[in-house]
Amino acid sequence: MEAIGYIIIQIFILLLAAKLLGSIFERLKMPSLIGEILAGVIFINLVLFFPDAGGLLHFDPNEFMHDESHFLHVMGELGVIFLLFMVGLETKFSDLMKVGKTALYVALLGIAMPLLGGFALMLAYDPNNVNLALLVGTAMFAMSTGIAIEVLRGLNAMSSREAKIIIGAAVIDDILCLSLLAMISGIVAPGTDMTSIAVNTIIVVVFLVFAFGLISRIRKMADRRKHRMIERYKHADLHGEIAIGSSVSEFHEIRSHPSELSVLGLAVLVCLGMAALSTTVGLAGIIGAFLAGMLFAEFKDTVPCEENFNTVTSFMLPFFFIYVGMMVKFDAFELGLLPLLVALIAVAVFTKFISGYLGARKGKLSKDSSTLIGVSMIPRGEVGIIVASIGLTLGVFSDQMFTSIILMTLATTMIAPPLISWAYKRMYKHTHEDHSASPHK
Amino acid sequence: MEAIGYIIIQIFILLLAAKLLGSIFERLKMPSLIGEILAGVIFINLVLFFPDAGGLLHFDPNEFMHDESHFLHVMGELGVIFLLFMVGLETKFSDLMKVGKTALYVALLGIAMPLLGGFALMLAYDPNNVNLALLVGTAMFAMSTGIAIEVLRGLNAMSSREAKIIIGAAVIDDILCLSLLAMISGIVAPGTDMTSIAVNTIIVVVFLVFAFGLISRIRKMADRRKHRMIERYKHADLHGEIAIGSSVSEFHEIRSHPSELSVLGLAVLVCLGMAALSTTVGLAGIIGAFLAGMLFAEFKDTVPCEENFNTVTSFMLPFFFIYVGMMVKFDAFELGLLPLLVALIAVAVFTKFISGYLGARKGKLSKDSSTLIGVSMIPRGEVGIIVASIGLTLGVFSDQMFTSIILMTLATTMIAPPLISWAYKRMYKHTHEDHSASPHK
Repeated sequence: MEAIGYIIIQIFILLLAAKLLGSIFERLKMPSLIGEILAGVIFINLVLFFPDAGGLLHFDPNEFMHDESHFLHVMGELGVIFLLFMVGLETKFSDLMKVGKTALYVALLGIAMPLLGGFALMLAYDPNNVNLALLVGTAMFAMSTGIAIEVLRGLNAMSSREAKIIIGAAVIDDILCLSLLAMISGIVAPGTDMTSIAVNTIIVVVFLVFAFGLISRIRKMADRRKHRMIERYKHADLHGEIAIGSSVSEFHEIRSHPSELSVLGLAVLVCLGMAALSTTVGLAGIIGAFLAGMLFAEFKDTVPCEENFNTVTSFMLPFFFIYVGMMVKFDAFELGLLPLLVALIAVAVFTKFISGYLGARKGKLSKDSSTLIGVSMIPRGEVGIIVASIGLTLGVFSDQMFTSIILMTLATTMIAPPLISWAYKRMYKHTHEDHSASPHK
Repeated sequence: MEAIGYIIIQIFILLLAAKLLGSIFERLKMPSLIGEILAGVIFINLVLFFPDAGGLLHFDPNEFMHDESHFLHVMGELGVIFLLFMVGLETKFSDLMKVGKTALYVALLGIAMPLLGGFALMLAYDPNNVNLALLVGTAMFAMSTGIAIEVLRGLNAMSSREAKIIIGAAVIDDILCLSLLAMISGIVAPGTDMTSIAVNTIIVVVFLVFAFGLISRIRKMADRRKHRMIERYKHADLHGEIAIGSSVSEFHEIRSHPSELSVLGLAVLVCLGMAALSTTVGLAGIIGAFLAGMLFAEFKDTVPCEENFNTVTSFMLPFFFIYVGMMVKFDAFELGLLPLLVALIAVAVFTKFISGYLGARKGKLSKDSSTLIGVSMIPRGEVGIIVASIGLTLGVFSDQMFTSIILMTLATTMIAPPLISWAYKRMYKHTHEDHSASPHK
């Protein structure tokens, strides 16, 4: 049997385990990514503890760990790059302007408190390692937009005021978080001095200003183009050239729209191009992908790539979670780390909850609403995992620390969904009792 | 910069070149896959001739060639596996029964004549190497369904009788071709004796009988289920339970349909699972993928995966053509091979044309229609390339022979589209003159 045959079998087994475990967690009303990560965890630990199993599949864990061009590494990286493009695609520049002060309070507190909390905890644990403390703080504040939104969607609560604040906060959170992540990963990279930190910060700022400037300029161009097209139709209509205006303009739209798959090709190219550009200036590839997504968000009407890009992402993303799981080696976890892990989880849950609660209260929301917003901030998910893998790559996190951060992330992700359900139902019930005439406030 | 950053840049450059060259060939009314293969050819030869360029991109051609788990290898393999699933998805079991004798004549002649032609040519060239002659013959008869259908679709000729014969012949061709390919690659594999050929043939037959049995059984189950559901609705309707039958049955259908992305997940799993199974029994992975596609073709109504699977395939497939192009090393081509290449191309074009023409004439079609069917059979495309890469992997093809087969495939693919256009227009014009009252026969 050829080597490629064994690789197909490896991919099949990994994807099968990821789907099975993922759907089990979905039935338990938890995000399927937990199951996908677990599939990777189980696979790598089975292969490490029973080398015969690895031999049977022709899977060499050492090759996997040290070969940068290994398909699992590359497909995982592509998966997370595509995910960040999708997050950017959901982030409209104009929406950023609309979100109220409450969302801003929630977002800023939700970054500051976990960052300080994680930093303080790690300094207490190891006073000499400022880089470690900084990166743990970063992993602490990175909120997962997807998980909270996924749970609220399941509750049919997307149109509530609380959901809008959470989404607004998540959007601000995403951008600040990715910018901060870029800077902090520059700061903690080994062998960097103050000059290179300054240079790195300047590069990040220039890159972001350039990218946002491009996005806003392109937005204006798209607006003008739309305006011109509407004018042209009006004009044509006046001259009686168009009998049934709408159907002809539909025809024109179809003509001027490129085919959906070629739009997908364009989006993939821009996404990878921006990711390549941002790695060239020293940032993480995901930041470029996020900006590329924001760019395409402005063209949703003319070049709709969302559905097809989502399909490709849904195929590639499990490889990222599987890859993340395969970084978690149980032989790296010692029982002595348990107190640290519990402390990490406690700080992660408490700081995010309290900052969401206080931010909402400052925005004059009821206690029930503030509780809902607080618990919705708890899950970390993808970005926390991304920070952990950057920490591992930079050599700041030991295998133990990496495993602890992943376990902390998984814990917050698993704790949050039931809490969000509970808080939403409680709020809904109280609102219901107060205003029994209007069940949907 | 991290290694993964360079890999993102490599992927971006490869995809960009593939899309640019692909769209140039599309504008020339030729299949874009030619451009995608060329992108791979240019990339690998630039890197080989200018090692500095490879160093700049951190691309190591040796690592690429010898590392089986290199992402380009694996993503290319996944791309072709998905392509064959899509081909299977277009192959309905029931359609196989419907196609007339003409399609069968065309298909059988179209396999026998190129196989014999290629075999005879190579035996004349190198009388001692039967395996080589057998595999070149195999690469000769493998028709490309996609290219002829793509060209006819562009001509709006898909509803013509000729197009239906071509599709029917292509379907039979596909199945026979993949079965023969499985057997022949078993025969030419190094170190095989007559016993293992016999065992291999039995395995192939058992596997195919099992798979087709499964497909036809599942088809019956699906039919019965549909029948039961219709009965149930009729019953419910009689009892006045359903006011507006269609909308409620639509609702039921939506309820009973799993979400489209989870159907995609299932299709990917079954496709990879069947591919893994067929590699385990010693067949190529693509055969399992093709059978998995035929399986899903029976469920198009209940579990529609075609659109999403096509999206994922459109993302993955360029990696296959790029990978194929990267196997073509110019340093392996000598001018002395030119006569052989010209002979290969001549045999490839002539045998396919004449078998299509004769098959159609035997089915009592006009000379014009037969000419159209004949030229439509010329392009080889994907399967020829697959055979070439199998030949290279098995060690039967030298680098020179591999390059010649790829060039032969590219030549037939580039010659055919203009010929098909010409033959269709000539036929249409003559039909028009004969029956000027009915332009669309």
